[in-house]
Amino acid sequence: MKRATVAFRVRYGETDRMGGVYYANYIAWFEMGRSALMREAGYPYRQLEGDGCILPVVEAYCKYRYPAHYDDHLVMETWLTRLTKRDLTFAYRIFREGKLLAEGYSRHMPIDPQGRRIRVPEGLLTLLEPYLESGGV
Amino acid sequence: MKRATVAFRVRYGETDRMGGVYYANYIAWFEMGRSALMREAGYPYRQLEGDGCILPVVEAYCKYRYPAHYDDHLVMETWLTRLTKRDLTFAYRIFREGKLLAEGYSRHMPIDPQGRRIRVPEGLLTLLEPYLESGGV
Amino acid sequence: MKRATVAFRVRYGETDRMGGVYYANYIAWFEMGRSALMREAGYPYRQLEGDGCILPVVEAYCKYRYPAHYDDHLVMETWLTRLTKRDLTFAYRIFREGKLLAEGYSRHMPIDPQGRRIRVPEGLLTLLEPYLESGGV
Amino acid sequence: MKRATVAFRVRYGETDRMGGVYYANYIAWFEMGRSALMREAGYPYRQLEGDGCILPVVEAYCKYRYPAHYDDHLVMETWLTRLTKRDLTFAYRIFREGKLLAEGYSRHMPIDPQGRRIRVPEGLLTLLEPYLESGGV
Repeated sequence: MKRATVAFRVRYGETDRMGGVYYANYIAWFEMGRSALMREAGYPYRQLEGDGCILPVVEAYCKYRYPAHYDDHLVMETWLTRLTKRDLTFAYRIFREGKLLAEGYSRHMPIDPQGRRIRVPEGLLTLLEPYLESGGV
Repeated sequence: MKRATVAFRVRYGETDRMGGVYYANYIAWFEMGRSALMREAGYPYRQLEGDGCILPVVEAYCKYRYPAHYDDHLVMETWLTRLTKRDLTFAYRIFREGKLLAEGYSRHMPIDPQGRRIRVPEGLLTLLEPYLESGGV
Repeated sequence: MKRATVAFRVRYGETDRMGGVYYANYIAWFEMGRSALMREAGYPYRQLEGDGCILPVVEAYCKYRYPAHYDDHLVMETWLTRLTKRDLTFAYRIFREGKLLAEGYSRHMPIDPQGRRIRVPEGLLTLLEPYLESGGV
Repeated sequence: MKRATVAFRVRYGETDRMGGVYYANYIAWFEMGRSALMREAGYPYRQLEGDGCILPVVEAYCKYRYPAHYDDHLVMETWLTRLTKRDLTFAYRIFREGKLLAEGYSRHMPIDPQGRRIRVPEGLLTLLEPYLESGGV
């Protein structure tokens, strides 16, 4: 099984007055994870949209274990827990020096630019398959 | 049962290049909902933090049904589906002209400013009780 | 001279770990001000874009006097300091209970959806004229 | 003269429905630039705040030349155009493959955690001096 890895630093504007990262920002980070996975798999999401296939989020979930802080160097792992032509679920784990801070998933259903449900290109499934594994939060 | 209601317009910066609102922003909006509920209940969250009780999010979930768009006038309902001294779950529904666009929840566990688990003030529970009902997404 | 007024509450996610509102968010708020002005003037920005005229920002500036905080009830005034068919400058002032917290401007040059410089519709100028005055930060 | 360089990819959530990056996000990116500069200079901003010196923004400006888009790989250069114990101005330029997309500055006045004007530590000035040059937008 493969997982895509992306490393990044926490920005000041991502924190809130509680001192740590604002909760919605972890879910925004998830998007970096799936972008990284698709780029690594060889079918960047930008290209997929250019090919007329959009992957809007239909569900998102995050479990928060420990807060991330400004300037922390974080690592996110991304993989897939479900992969069909009409339904994809990405799973995410965010770590700071090996410690799991947050984990979650997002579920996506492909549509065309007019908003109609479509199937993802056959080629995409083949490229994403190595990242599929069962489990996740 | 009572539900707190907050109305707001979608900001341009909340949209993304897909044309609708970026998915993490619905979850950020949830926070407006629980702020409104606590203000309406008579114990604003700002005051609760001033009293040394912080309510970090330990879980968040959102189900996306239809996209919201720039300048849409939205209405969000907020209530509670779980209410104990150590565990609160807020539920949210976001509507545009009566149509349900998104719904979700966030679960919170009270801590003190040093990060230790505490109980919420007795008075808060009494004030929040009218907003408690079973169900939710 | 007329100024459009919009009132709003500071959201938790708009603050940063310094305790006040993150500096880029004041500039994001400016967009609410010009949306409110155009809606009040009778030509909502959403309609203008639908009519094929987009107003990207070519310059933005903000001067920060006092920080806004979570849950503050703010009032923003918006007007125009320059108004020609090819060049519009909006000015903004943000207040908390009459105290000026921040002020700034944004300059816009109309383009069509293909990115070519165009003139704004004649009708828009007429509607915006009452909001034009000299001065500003 | 030295300039700090930071490279990053545009996130999906940073775009708006116009298709490019939302204007306030360039100004949020500036903060990454000054964080990178201070880290490179040997006095990370996180450490400066820990030492009781906060650098709130008192002015910010951005000039927008060409839009950045989702997944673009951008490079930002950061340097200083003013450097005194009570007044620092950072300058920024954002490029995509050598093309200047946006440039701007932010001015900062040091305060202590109680909000009183202070001087920055002597050591900081020495470390930042190599990044000082005249000019900028």
